[in-house]
Amino acid sequence: MCQQTPFIPTQVSFQLDLPSWLTHKLSTLPQHFDSDEKKMQLVLECATDNFQRNTGGPFAAGVFERDTGKLVAMGVNRVVPTQCSSAHAEVMALSMAQQVLSHYDLGRGGFPAHQIVINWRPCAMCFGAILWSGVRSVMIAGAGAELEAITGFDEGPMTPNWRQELESRGIELVEGVMNQQAIELFENFAATNRPVYNARVS
Amino acid sequence: MCQQTPFIPTQVSFQLDLPSWLTHKLSTLPQHFDSDEKKMQLVLECATDNFQRNTGGPFAAGVFERDTGKLVAMGVNRVVPTQCSSAHAEVMALSMAQQVLSHYDLGRGGFPAHQIVINWRPCAMCFGAILWSGVRSVMIAGAGAELEAITGFDEGPMTPNWRQELESRGIELVEGVMNQQAIELFENFAATNRPVYNARVS
Repeated sequence: MCQQTPFIPTQVSFQLDLPSWLTHKLSTLPQHFDSDEKKMQLVLECATDNFQRNTGGPFAAGVFERDTGKLVAMGVNRVVPTQCSSAHAEVMALSMAQQVLSHYDLGRGGFPAHQIVINWRPCAMCFGAILWSGVRSVMIAGAGAELEAITGFDEGPMTPNWRQELESRGIELVEGVMNQQAIELFENFAATNRPVYNARVS
Repeated sequence: MCQQTPFIPTQVSFQLDLPSWLTHKLSTLPQHFDSDEKKMQLVLECATDNFQRNTGGPFAAGVFERDTGKLVAMGVNRVVPTQCSSAHAEVMALSMAQQVLSHYDLGRGGFPAHQIVINWRPCAMCFGAILWSGVRSVMIAGAGAELEAITGFDEGPMTPNWRQELESRGIELVEGVMNQQAIELFENFAATNRPVYNARVS
């Protein structure tokens, strides 16, 4: 009975953006980060700023050239402000990096190897996003149950052999960089009682 | 030695768009689709048009109100044209729907239940994206090995008990709608010899 009513398309594109504080912060950064700790320190700073400034969840990610430490792009979690459940830090950082390099494959022939640096193991969605992005290295501060236990965020069902899945696809995994600082960040987030937005806790 | 060189941020946002043929097609559609087959037919048409018009891979997704069949948003795979490896059909459709409804959670209290209709089982990334989107129903034409076997696309490591993961989160799964037509679509795609862009086949 409703067949006669036409569909009116109101949305034919969408835009995801970084918060303005991060845009400003980026312009104050050096071009290169010459140690694992310096890269992770930047990611932890951005994750902290993001929840403290109320511009998203306590997660950040950076894409670097693996061997030179050159910063390519940063992302932070933007789910709530951008009204987009896929706007996790990893998707933001990888998409920004792909726009910077004008290609969907960061592992394309002719490109230097790229690394994504994240303040914890990616969720189920972002694990897939990393596989498809072309990065050749993933650096995380930790991979344990602390994230879910401390913050209440649901990280979803990972394939059990996720480390082997990375290895079999030629993606290096660097774990445990600034682990205690990353856990403290989650504790600080939990202490704020900011909302945790798991969509499907039915 | 490179520490003095400042980082110059060139990318602080990115936009993902539908192809113009789909924008036009949407304006010709009815508002409601009153059967599973009519919803899937639309998705299969869009997936076919997308690869035939060279605007992305052979995948489409629609978000509907589950009980009324009202169309909310459509998406198609846009990885290559938008230079974004996360621009799969499901991420496009879910993100468009969230913009239409101005909320990151399609399962928010007060909203009608939403359903995503896809021409095959989602990849590892999109499975996670669906969990986080708030949809309460997933309809697929098939879930078997045919997609990877026929097209060569890598769908990534799914958690083995993905059906139970949906069920335990209160997300209904409807399988096998227009299965043969979906397989024929992949065969037609394979016959074109268009590039398959698996990023990390190392």
